[in-house]
Amino acid sequence: MSVPITPALKDELDIVIPTIRNLDFLEMWRPFFQPYHLIIVQDGDPTKTIKVPEGFDYELYNRNDINRILGPKASCISFKDSACRCFGYMVSKKKYIYTIDDDCFVAKDPTGKEINALEQHIKNLLCPSTPNFFNTLYDPYREGADFVRGYPFSMREGVKTAVSHGLWMNIPDYDAPTQMVKPLERNTRYVDAVMTIPKGTLFPMCGMNLAFDRELIGPAMYFGLMGDGQPIGRYDDMWAGWCIKVICDHLGLGVKTGLPYIWHSKASNPFVNLKKEYKGIFWQEEIIPFFQSVSLPKDCTSVQKCYLVLAEKVKEKLGPIDPYFTKLADAMVTWIEAWDQINSTSTGAKVANGTANGK
Amino acid sequence: MSVPITPALKDELDIVIPTIRNLDFLEMWRPFFQPYHLIIVQDGDPTKTIKVPEGFDYELYNRNDINRILGPKASCISFKDSACRCFGYMVSKKKYIYTIDDDCFVAKDPTGKEINALEQHIKNLLCPSTPNFFNTLYDPYREGADFVRGYPFSMREGVKTAVSHGLWMNIPDYDAPTQMVKPLERNTRYVDAVMTIPKGTLFPMCGMNLAFDRELIGPAMYFGLMGDGQPIGRYDDMWAGWCIKVICDHLGLGVKTGLPYIWHSKASNPFVNLKKEYKGIFWQEEIIPFFQSVSLPKDCTSVQKCYLVLAEKVKEKLGPIDPYFTKLADAMVTWIEAWDQINSTSTGAKVANGTANGK
Repeated sequence: MSVPITPALKDELDIVIPTIRNLDFLEMWRPFFQPYHLIIVQDGDPTKTIKVPEGFDYELYNRNDINRILGPKASCISFKDSACRCFGYMVSKKKYIYTIDDDCFVAKDPTGKEINALEQHIKNLLCPSTPNFFNTLYDPYREGADFVRGYPFSMREGVKTAVSHGLWMNIPDYDAPTQMVKPLERNTRYVDAVMTIPKGTLFPMCGMNLAFDRELIGPAMYFGLMGDGQPIGRYDDMWAGWCIKVICDHLGLGVKTGLPYIWHSKASNPFVNLKKEYKGIFWQEEIIPFFQSVSLPKDCTSVQKCYLVLAEKVKEKLGPIDPYFTKLADAMVTWIEAWDQINSTSTGAKVANGTANGK
Repeated sequence: MSVPITPALKDELDIVIPTIRNLDFLEMWRPFFQPYHLIIVQDGDPTKTIKVPEGFDYELYNRNDINRILGPKASCISFKDSACRCFGYMVSKKKYIYTIDDDCFVAKDPTGKEINALEQHIKNLLCPSTPNFFNTLYDPYREGADFVRGYPFSMREGVKTAVSHGLWMNIPDYDAPTQMVKPLERNTRYVDAVMTIPKGTLFPMCGMNLAFDRELIGPAMYFGLMGDGQPIGRYDDMWAGWCIKVICDHLGLGVKTGLPYIWHSKASNPFVNLKKEYKGIFWQEEIIPFFQSVSLPKDCTSVQKCYLVLAEKVKEKLGPIDPYFTKLADAMVTWIEAWDQINSTSTGAKVANGTANGK
């Protein structure tokens, strides 16, 4: 097989995937993913076995592994929900993470060429962002583009990019009500652009096709409490998106969205989704104004510090909406404790003992 | 000739063009512009005659007309600079304005079809903007798109759109230093998107291909003092862009950018441009932080009130940079006085006496 390898950052990037239910998934991505190390986090029954095709370098964690590794702190990791993937971000030892859902396949660009999503994410992460002023010709660092007339020269160095949010052809990432109203809508429009989401602006971050710099923003990329025993689902990535954007803005880091596209193959069941989402649909009307107005003190100079202050504010301001937010705020603190424990050099060695293929 | 007329808003939109030096310009746009009324504002020697081809409905103002109509207030209108076009915004009686430079021709979309720029601007102006939260699939009101999961439902009505900023294929709108460094760069990338510039974010507004709702934002669309007798040029549209964005944000109005593209045929001379721009290049480093931090009081509920408060703040905060800004602040006040005078019903009749083709 002719493998168009993407060697860039081979030793600096892990691919994190929640449970793979679809056997075609890894085969389709093989030419692009095989050079990389995979971290698979199984979201449901730990007695079920996930069969990873030959040739992939991977480690796999199920619930038993998570409980063993984190002990009581495992309570911060969701169960029976793909939100558990953030455990993979925590145990990775790499600088960059790419996470993708198992119903996302390789998309084609308008010329019919298969899109190497990972390569584009790496480009996005390696070149700066411009959150402080809008460039009308989109990413000014791209070949054939630049800063337009009137863009302040002092801002042209940009800032470090922490997050690259990719999009989806075919099935768009709609909420249950929109899915129900527009069951046949497909995204067929390829927008050839990458742009920085401006400072002070929140966005709905989707976890289907997402890359980030773990060193810059990893500890804020917590996917919250979803699924089993929780009153809400399908807000794991949204929660992370609100948190990372506020923290990136505070720390002067950039968030990009646009290219690359993946092919989102199947819509999840809108009735099931509605059940998971409906509290979120109410709650987000209060959560978003909270995140739009929250500000972090100047002495919060690390992601961890920012995140712990944010947890306090969540408890104070969102706790009154529902006891869930008090639990979530506590879980945010537990997450940071677990992150720091796993990522301290002395205990780091304990981690790599999920099921690995030992390649 | 088969004319693909754009009848939309035929009686509600004027096209404002600074001096037409290029005879091909109107011929090329004839299929698209002929249904509309043109306002041509001649920027240089009033003794020179601009020959408008047969069949166009137009009125033409030269410097003598401006002086006669505005009297001493004519001092706020630039001379020998295309910034004088804003006089056309003032004397228009229509709800919408489209302004375009005479070196901008009809562009083609990737399928080779000629782009009806005006039609797209009208679409942009007639459908709402979403400045308060970012939609990752771009304009949610476009056919085939919508608000994505996680977009608050309470924000899905959007806000009224006041400004539609179109882009340019071929010669990008670069400043003189970038033109010098990249003399051969051409914009060949057609980005099939329209997006709202988020609240709180400034952008470099280019006047080459620009439409706006005169009733919503007209009095703030002042192109400043440029050209003859002024220390600066090529910042007329930028100045207007900073002002309108701050005021739109304050009043809850939207600004869109992206489609439509026009074909920008020729780059202006970078050496001449550098001479015009160089003070602006320094000054914008202080001007932009000023506009990023300026806030308008709650009782500013009309564009005029906002603009007059902005003029005061310009005098106070930018005046110390250079006496030019004190003069500019005074001109901003004069502009509003002239706007109100021309647009009061009693004196409106006085206006329509430039050279018209009486069609």
